[in-house]
Amino acid sequence: MNTFGNLFRVTIFGESHGPAVGCVVDGVPAGTKIDEAEIAAELERRAPGRSGTATPRRETDIPEILSGVRGGIATGAPIACLIRNENAHSGDYAEIPLRPGHADWTALVKYGGHADPRGGGRFSGRLTAGLVFAGAIAKKLLAGKGVSIYARLKSVAGAEDAIDLASGGASARKEALRQISLKPFPAADDCEELFKARILAAKDAGDSVGGIVEAVCFGVPAGTGEPFFGSVESRAAAMLFSVPAVKGVEFGRGFEIAKLRGSEANDPIMPAGGKRSFATTTNNNGGLLGGIANGMPIVCRAAVKPTASIAMAQDSVDPIMGEAARIELKGRHDPCIAPRAVPVVEAGLAIVLADLLLEGGYL
Amino acid sequence: MNTFGNLFRVTIFGESHGPAVGCVVDGVPAGTKIDEAEIAAELERRAPGRSGTATPRRETDIPEILSGVRGGIATGAPIACLIRNENAHSGDYAEIPLRPGHADWTALVKYGGHADPRGGGRFSGRLTAGLVFAGAIAKKLLAGKGVSIYARLKSVAGAEDAIDLASGGASARKEALRQISLKPFPAADDCEELFKARILAAKDAGDSVGGIVEAVCFGVPAGTGEPFFGSVESRAAAMLFSVPAVKGVEFGRGFEIAKLRGSEANDPIMPAGGKRSFATTTNNNGGLLGGIANGMPIVCRAAVKPTASIAMAQDSVDPIMGEAARIELKGRHDPCIAPRAVPVVEAGLAIVLADLLLEGGYL
Amino acid sequence: MNTFGNLFRVTIFGESHGPAVGCVVDGVPAGTKIDEAEIAAELERRAPGRSGTATPRRETDIPEILSGVRGGIATGAPIACLIRNENAHSGDYAEIPLRPGHADWTALVKYGGHADPRGGGRFSGRLTAGLVFAGAIAKKLLAGKGVSIYARLKSVAGAEDAIDLASGGASARKEALRQISLKPFPAADDCEELFKARILAAKDAGDSVGGIVEAVCFGVPAGTGEPFFGSVESRAAAMLFSVPAVKGVEFGRGFEIAKLRGSEANDPIMPAGGKRSFATTTNNNGGLLGGIANGMPIVCRAAVKPTASIAMAQDSVDPIMGEAARIELKGRHDPCIAPRAVPVVEAGLAIVLADLLLEGGYL
Amino acid sequence: MNTFGNLFRVTIFGESHGPAVGCVVDGVPAGTKIDEAEIAAELERRAPGRSGTATPRRETDIPEILSGVRGGIATGAPIACLIRNENAHSGDYAEIPLRPGHADWTALVKYGGHADPRGGGRFSGRLTAGLVFAGAIAKKLLAGKGVSIYARLKSVAGAEDAIDLASGGASARKEALRQISLKPFPAADDCEELFKARILAAKDAGDSVGGIVEAVCFGVPAGTGEPFFGSVESRAAAMLFSVPAVKGVEFGRGFEIAKLRGSEANDPIMPAGGKRSFATTTNNNGGLLGGIANGMPIVCRAAVKPTASIAMAQDSVDPIMGEAARIELKGRHDPCIAPRAVPVVEAGLAIVLADLLLEGGYL
Repeated sequence: MNTFGNLFRVTIFGESHGPAVGCVVDGVPAGTKIDEAEIAAELERRAPGRSGTATPRRETDIPEILSGVRGGIATGAPIACLIRNENAHSGDYAEIPLRPGHADWTALVKYGGHADPRGGGRFSGRLTAGLVFAGAIAKKLLAGKGVSIYARLKSVAGAEDAIDLASGGASARKEALRQISLKPFPAADDCEELFKARILAAKDAGDSVGGIVEAVCFGVPAGTGEPFFGSVESRAAAMLFSVPAVKGVEFGRGFEIAKLRGSEANDPIMPAGGKRSFATTTNNNGGLLGGIANGMPIVCRAAVKPTASIAMAQDSVDPIMGEAARIELKGRHDPCIAPRAVPVVEAGLAIVLADLLLEGGYL
Repeated sequence: MNTFGNLFRVTIFGESHGPAVGCVVDGVPAGTKIDEAEIAAELERRAPGRSGTATPRRETDIPEILSGVRGGIATGAPIACLIRNENAHSGDYAEIPLRPGHADWTALVKYGGHADPRGGGRFSGRLTAGLVFAGAIAKKLLAGKGVSIYARLKSVAGAEDAIDLASGGASARKEALRQISLKPFPAADDCEELFKARILAAKDAGDSVGGIVEAVCFGVPAGTGEPFFGSVESRAAAMLFSVPAVKGVEFGRGFEIAKLRGSEANDPIMPAGGKRSFATTTNNNGGLLGGIANGMPIVCRAAVKPTASIAMAQDSVDPIMGEAARIELKGRHDPCIAPRAVPVVEAGLAIVLADLLLEGGYL
Repeated sequence: MNTFGNLFRVTIFGESHGPAVGCVVDGVPAGTKIDEAEIAAELERRAPGRSGTATPRRETDIPEILSGVRGGIATGAPIACLIRNENAHSGDYAEIPLRPGHADWTALVKYGGHADPRGGGRFSGRLTAGLVFAGAIAKKLLAGKGVSIYARLKSVAGAEDAIDLASGGASARKEALRQISLKPFPAADDCEELFKARILAAKDAGDSVGGIVEAVCFGVPAGTGEPFFGSVESRAAAMLFSVPAVKGVEFGRGFEIAKLRGSEANDPIMPAGGKRSFATTTNNNGGLLGGIANGMPIVCRAAVKPTASIAMAQDSVDPIMGEAARIELKGRHDPCIAPRAVPVVEAGLAIVLADLLLEGGYL
Repeated sequence: MNTFGNLFRVTIFGESHGPAVGCVVDGVPAGTKIDEAEIAAELERRAPGRSGTATPRRETDIPEILSGVRGGIATGAPIACLIRNENAHSGDYAEIPLRPGHADWTALVKYGGHADPRGGGRFSGRLTAGLVFAGAIAKKLLAGKGVSIYARLKSVAGAEDAIDLASGGASARKEALRQISLKPFPAADDCEELFKARILAAKDAGDSVGGIVEAVCFGVPAGTGEPFFGSVESRAAAMLFSVPAVKGVEFGRGFEIAKLRGSEANDPIMPAGGKRSFATTTNNNGGLLGGIANGMPIVCRAAVKPTASIAMAQDSVDPIMGEAARIELKGRHDPCIAPRAVPVVEAGLAIVLADLLLEGGYL
């Protein structure tokens, strides 16, 4: 089940310390401009080693396109790409006890000892490079229709960015979000130091922290999505829960909306200058009603758990005999994965929206 | 996109005030016992009018099975069922302004005025009757493998059931959950009065409230699910976000886990009496690692927004001319839909798990 | 696996002697006119008992639409319909030996004795009523884009209609085909008596015969379809081989093309009055190149085997003990199923083309 | 639509003269032995330049595995592979008129001039290398369950191999078929010279010929497949019609069965030594009843049209202005593609059967 999507289909492959990771992107309309510099810039946003808060493991992450592009233009054939794995220290992972919070255990049970454990193997966050590649192409498609997606760190280790940049559609807020999303540490200037301090405090303690990524999708045509299984929420959540370490997904006010009264939660509707063109004064529903976009910004958040790989000693079991064992991880790990999840969340949403817009005949 | 699942496939159909709602359940193994009384009992849990907190609209919800069952046994053919719509007061819905928080607006845009608006049409919660029917069959399949799913109200209008019934696998807690789930008002005894009081207070004010449903899946075999797009979370969330009014889905500690440190969030692993049989001392990951079940209870929560239909006057627009208009809804509405979402969440998860277990060769 | 299609999705259900057969048609654009008289006329073409060559079993085949249509217009919701089974003589099928050429044997193995054997159960040709219903809706959609599909009996029991009505696009030939397709016995006037005579000769002998159905699709936009797995041939064949008794499918010259030289088989291309508008002087490729329509008529044929149910005594085994047994079938059976397969083949192709045209953004 | 399959999923990519062709094979059970020598041997069977009847273009076709295999064992992750394109003479294809019988025309219309025309681009038979790679893995899986697939040339240019190697299950015939399938020119010894002579005669005339490939699948468990859309025929045909140049697919007696009477076509059933274990004395249905395998050999044939690229002058149009133009192709082309289609047909069927057997719980 490594293929996602209906008309815009993404197949990802790879293992952290295998020869390569990559993806096949199927359904890209012929004639779409494929800008390798833009793709590289997106991959660079996800790449490790961009700031003091991230793992020093450094990958160049240069994608090689194998098909589907000629002279910078999509040919209509599936676009396959690979990114070679380099700089892998496989010695770090030999026969250690099962890492708590990781998929070591479930991979062992599911694949009967055949899974490649090095660097997390199939379960590595590195696999999201393929998503980011596909997402860059999806973003290009969407941009042609005025759809843009920007994400940022909404909270880290419990510290929260209280500014609501998501509710309105004003271009000033959109531009502010865009600029934040592109920062090496994609948090609002007011929050950056606090967030970083919490990450580094955990790092110093041999520990890690989690965070919440908030994404806003602007310009999605009203009418996108379907009731029930084809809801924007269903499809976006299926994608976002594919991203390693995500444990929660919500739209609009999300879990908070369950505390409100209907009179507070319902977004009042007002005319917006056309016969069937409306807007809301609030956006508690995050741009989605009945699973379908209403034209307001689509707002969603993904909760990213603390990096499971920590230096502190933990209780576990050894994978061979299954006996109790202490584990102390060495190796290079992000003390907080949430900053690097920001471009991945954007990419995932771009893939979903490109698929939905193709289905809806908008692309 | 009204079909869900891969090997266990559910197609739902119907509109609130049309002739019938129903579903086709495909992939039920021949020989599965189909107990119409059990199905009726599940439908009764979802049916309106069960308690003073719900809409007085009363449907008998008797399913008619059209195929796939002979002598109470699944034949291997798809099981189609319909439930006739009765007791519909269509006059309540004629040409009113767009109801804030509802799909009236997005349906108008998407279907160009052709959607049946009566009773919410395609977007009605009544459509979940088909899910509950299919879920009852899925539960039967799962029960044969020792898998059971129980949900309850975790919170209503901000009041929360603080008891953690989800973290352990002890049979006492499982039985407690089972009993709560079957109550007409599926909340713990300690919380029932408080929850009901908040609902009735909102009702008296012509308003509504939301709530959170928590479900626990016991006995899911370790190894169920896949990395990335086939993750248990991805597939369960795709289903749960199909349920009208759900705005957030989380697993294990969910959004709270983003506030923890890795040393708190990671569930320590311990031997559990077999070579590859382990358990955890905590269950912050809600039984899921790398998208795959580890054998601990799978815990998830769905946030249900306050019922959008409220009696209080609201600002909106009229659907014909698109001009500003006040709306005051009459008709019969649940002041809180969360209690009736409890069996729907269970059913949705049962459908997902039956599909995953069939794929994994467990069924 | 009882759902077919990507954007235009058809789910069929039912068993020959169960309560009903039917289908759910998902993806019909809101606003599509749903003409019940047209649907009834299509079902009537498939219904048994229309001529002396068919089974005297007579079904009224009146579909009841359960959802998705209001005031004769598609609402955008899935269109569910059921057709009640009547006039079933179940006594004819009790515990007889496995019928050679039938699915009795494979159903017994696959469903372990739980399949409903009456009237062929799930495997009955009666299930194609659901296809015809869905096909009628698809035809309506296609007609709006100038696409039409007409089939006829190309051969019966080895006697062949030698007239090539398929190669050109001339409207005279199209109209001739249309008229033949609508006849109670859908064969060219020149062939009707011969074909009928062969069928009746077999019937008199307690035997049956097969035939070949040829369908031509006019007006399919050039560019419809995709290379490889999405080829028009792949998708059409997947549908046509779903029709009971079909053992071969071919396009254009089909198997005959393997005997030709390239210089004979290649269709010369000529200008057709537009920059990228071409035509061919022959149509050996049946309107399809590289899996994609070129705008010429799409021609395909399906080979329908002789009705497996015959009165003559045959060697078989009994289903209980598995011992050798003679079987002499009574009951009412079509001595040749090919005439009734004509509207089914049309319907199947209409479903496939509606799906492809929706994917291609033509509908 | 470049992904095929449900549980065993194959995604193919590439263009004839682009950097590489390849595939991603998803769903291979962890622990499956991946024998690179066996895979190479299968690719070698498809590779050009093996005999005097084929194109002298010579590719080494060495696959590079990028993921999913470690130490010769499948890890459970998707297996991605690429095969670099070499030895491409792109100059041969510059701005020539549309080649009759080719996808040049339909690609031009569909992809608006963006498709890579070199060597047929996406439509090249070279893309089938990915299928053969995936098929080799599927064959390995199947072999573990006693399932084997052998194909051969049944006819070339109208000359036919009259020996029926398909009807029985005797191991002698199976071994004979196996040996024929592995020959560089996979025809029975008795036919080889005749078939080759016809190919070379066409070649000498600057022309080409077609042929028919017949495949037999031995050991498929009775009960494999489903009625209607999941029929073995539907799924196999969807795959076989994906193979470039295939214009017809039939099972068992195929189109010939339409000429028989039921008493001739029905395969008499006899006991085969177990309670629900039967066999037939003939195999006109090709091992398939009601879409489901009955345990007899599954027999199918695919008609392969004459190579469209011929040296003889043909009438066509130029792609730029759309005006009439003569075309005389140079370059290196197979005068008959059918011999090289033999391993591709085997691979395609292996992929389909692996998927069906996984679904059925046999693998």
